[in-house]
Amino acid sequence: MGNVSPGNAPIGVFDSGVGGLTVFREIMRQMPNERIVYFGDTARVPYGSKSRDTIVRYSRQIVRFLLTRQVKTIVVACNTASAYALDDLEKEFDVPMIGVVKPGAKVAAKASRNGRIGVIGTEATIGSSIYSQYIEALKSDAAISGKACPLFVPLVEEGLWEDPVTEEIARRYLAELIDIDIDTLILGCTHYPLIRSTIGKIMGPDVTMVNPAYETAQELKQMLAETGLLNSEQPGLGRDSYQFYVSDKADKFIHFANSIIKYGILSAKQINIEEY
Amino acid sequence: MGNVSPGNAPIGVFDSGVGGLTVFREIMRQMPNERIVYFGDTARVPYGSKSRDTIVRYSRQIVRFLLTRQVKTIVVACNTASAYALDDLEKEFDVPMIGVVKPGAKVAAKASRNGRIGVIGTEATIGSSIYSQYIEALKSDAAISGKACPLFVPLVEEGLWEDPVTEEIARRYLAELIDIDIDTLILGCTHYPLIRSTIGKIMGPDVTMVNPAYETAQELKQMLAETGLLNSEQPGLGRDSYQFYVSDKADKFIHFANSIIKYGILSAKQINIEEY
Repeated sequence: MGNVSPGNAPIGVFDSGVGGLTVFREIMRQMPNERIVYFGDTARVPYGSKSRDTIVRYSRQIVRFLLTRQVKTIVVACNTASAYALDDLEKEFDVPMIGVVKPGAKVAAKASRNGRIGVIGTEATIGSSIYSQYIEALKSDAAISGKACPLFVPLVEEGLWEDPVTEEIARRYLAELIDIDIDTLILGCTHYPLIRSTIGKIMGPDVTMVNPAYETAQELKQMLAETGLLNSEQPGLGRDSYQFYVSDKADKFIHFANSIIKYGILSAKQINIEEY
Repeated sequence: MGNVSPGNAPIGVFDSGVGGLTVFREIMRQMPNERIVYFGDTARVPYGSKSRDTIVRYSRQIVRFLLTRQVKTIVVACNTASAYALDDLEKEFDVPMIGVVKPGAKVAAKASRNGRIGVIGTEATIGSSIYSQYIEALKSDAAISGKACPLFVPLVEEGLWEDPVTEEIARRYLAELIDIDIDTLILGCTHYPLIRSTIGKIMGPDVTMVNPAYETAQELKQMLAETGLLNSEQPGLGRDSYQFYVSDKADKFIHFANSIIKYGILSAKQINIEEY
């Protein structure tokens, strides 16, 4: 990076695969001046069905890789990795980090009127109870109910964003949350905003849906401003400002990424993450 | 292993996760005297959506691990790994190996009367065209049609073996194979035998379904007999004859494994496969 100022270094963003691109997209929108390095662990995706130790080990390798890209901060753009690895990573590494869980919990605690909040996510995220812990710390009388929805990610990746099958599966997963009359639902997996309309149709208009990506980008911006790390250059942002790395072949990633980010991701570079 | 005879060494069987247990089950049935060491790469599952290079790298690590368990032969009990990695593995390692693709292709070529054969499998397996290559070598006038069915594995792992949703998804995937009037369908992924009745309902009684697991166990038995490697002991087989290793936490594996193998798998050991 030579003699550039620290604020002009890129933001590192990582996820188990493509889902974190919904967070990338929010950062891009809210901070159009920032450079971003994105890493998707496409060779080991998904994380959501795996154990804490494995998720921590994988996340640690990714942070080590991102640090070689001279990032100024790291966004853990994966609910499962935020749930299980963020605390360990923050202790181990010196770079400022932010996950998606805390911002999501904060906005849900604020949004809920009746205190009954639902969280949907991967098996690992729901099993961690992390959203409950954060929400209860903010709103001690809240009643939080988690529901793992393991088929949502494959359905999203199959492109069935609005489809009777996705609707039927969503109806089954969400029934128990409707029964207990939640008024707020956290989309606790970065894939889920892509089927927001299907989920919303089932939950009905009275349930507030929380997409942690939006709030995460907000908090990130505030954190960068407070630490003097916002980009002060006018970098004339173009494709060069965004770099994409993956642990498996790039083509499939590029195809899916382009369906999320209307930007034209022209290239992604494959690296061997096990070496980090 | 000390001074035991080579035939009494275990058979190594591996898969990306739990699917290969349908092959394990066949070997157990057909060769009740054999010890088996099973490895499921649950930390990196699935393979079916990943690239050739990644699948070869992972498979190589697994073979290295199995060799530390003194196996006398290795069964690649995963269609995707058989499709992409078996050739490389056979060149690299000295131990006799067998995959599931060749036996499956052989039985399908024999079974088909009209020469129109369908293959269903993961994106990677279908993308490799490996079944076509093997079948055409045996039956040059055969017309082979492949269809990737990426949602089948998650549906099986969610336990929806007989369910309207699985049926609807199967109807969509299989429509094009019904249209071209295949008379033989290869279940080209080790998970698929578990939804055989759903697939059979859609294909109708005139389509022969081929489960490569059965034929693989047959060929394995023949190979062991020819090379003098069948177990000659009467090992008084019990739980000790079967060892299970996984790359992620064992509990989930054990739960699913017990739903496939009515045997009572009491324990599985987690190892760090990246070290091999």
